[in-house]
Amino acid sequence: MRKVADSTVRRLSLYLRFLDEFEGQGVETVSSEALAQRGGTTSAQVRKDLSFFGSFGKRGLGYFVPELAQRLRQILGLGRRYRVAMIGAGKIGSALVQYRGFQQRGFDIVSIFDVDPAKIGTQWNDLTVGSIDDLDRDLRAQPVDMAVLVTPAEAAQAVTDRLVVLGVKAILNFAPAQLNVPDDVVVKTVNLALELETLSYALSNR
Amino acid sequence: MRKVADSTVRRLSLYLRFLDEFEGQGVETVSSEALAQRGGTTSAQVRKDLSFFGSFGKRGLGYFVPELAQRLRQILGLGRRYRVAMIGAGKIGSALVQYRGFQQRGFDIVSIFDVDPAKIGTQWNDLTVGSIDDLDRDLRAQPVDMAVLVTPAEAAQAVTDRLVVLGVKAILNFAPAQLNVPDDVVVKTVNLALELETLSYALSNR
Repeated sequence: MRKVADSTVRRLSLYLRFLDEFEGQGVETVSSEALAQRGGTTSAQVRKDLSFFGSFGKRGLGYFVPELAQRLRQILGLGRRYRVAMIGAGKIGSALVQYRGFQQRGFDIVSIFDVDPAKIGTQWNDLTVGSIDDLDRDLRAQPVDMAVLVTPAEAAQAVTDRLVVLGVKAILNFAPAQLNVPDDVVVKTVNLALELETLSYALSNR
Repeated sequence: MRKVADSTVRRLSLYLRFLDEFEGQGVETVSSEALAQRGGTTSAQVRKDLSFFGSFGKRGLGYFVPELAQRLRQILGLGRRYRVAMIGAGKIGSALVQYRGFQQRGFDIVSIFDVDPAKIGTQWNDLTVGSIDDLDRDLRAQPVDMAVLVTPAEAAQAVTDRLVVLGVKAILNFAPAQLNVPDDVVVKTVNLALELETLSYALSNR
């Protein structure tokens, strides 16, 4: 498969979200214009994004909603569920564990680890916070597909190195740190202060 | 000023983070190579990013850390503090209010609003959760520069329209919705499920 830009993948996720809504409403076909409007882009961009993955839709009829939704789920790797470990049981971790959006899309947080003795052993929904000292043992017994990293910056790389050894191939990183990983591991970093700074930049340069 | 890509602004934020660390350690000069390494990019990219904003550094000496940090703060609009309203007092809102990264970079959350009578009137650190019904009155009395939107998708556009009328020019949006705003208002959307989907895509297409 050709290398597809991150921005394309993000738009595919948005299209799928709208298709899910349409499917729920019983809508059978949708035009590239309607998808574009909901995705904040152009119909030419929608057609280009989808053309990466084959031929969809019929001229004059648009796209068949259930068919396109199903194909996008396959493309995005959403035809299965993913087991996710949360590293760091702080405020952001707590919000993420209870964030329904993850589970709705097939991402199940199955374990939580922390370094703080006051947090280890506490219950979070159905999960018990484990000690980071037991990370290797626990993830060997109960492997995960992905990890969500919510540690302080200075701890992030060391935990990442352990996760890589344990075979974790995808990390969603909330720590304000640049992580070094081998080529076969994917990292997405979400930096909230940095998002605000793109806003302050925009306010100051208008 | 020329139009600068979002990705450039994000790298400037990263460079500034590293410069802040260097400044704290008393480091006086830094090479574009060192900045590049910390930012996960190339020294040519560092020089290109900075060249948008004038001439920095001396050949063979590198960049003067305090001078470049100060200039980047100006460019990013961080020479001042920003007043931020939080719309939605749920789990993610709670995590964000206590997230030190915002305040460290000059973003002060000064008010919180919710629609839920059980939350209205409760204390969050030094703040009292206000009713969304009082949004217009409260933000007229205590104007803000930015809003962080943590509402359900179906409520997001209506609140946004009110914020726009109240003169808010920048919105950090956590609601899984595409927001329509006038040209002079900036919106950054952070969609956590979507971030996980770029990971599942990467895992499925390797």
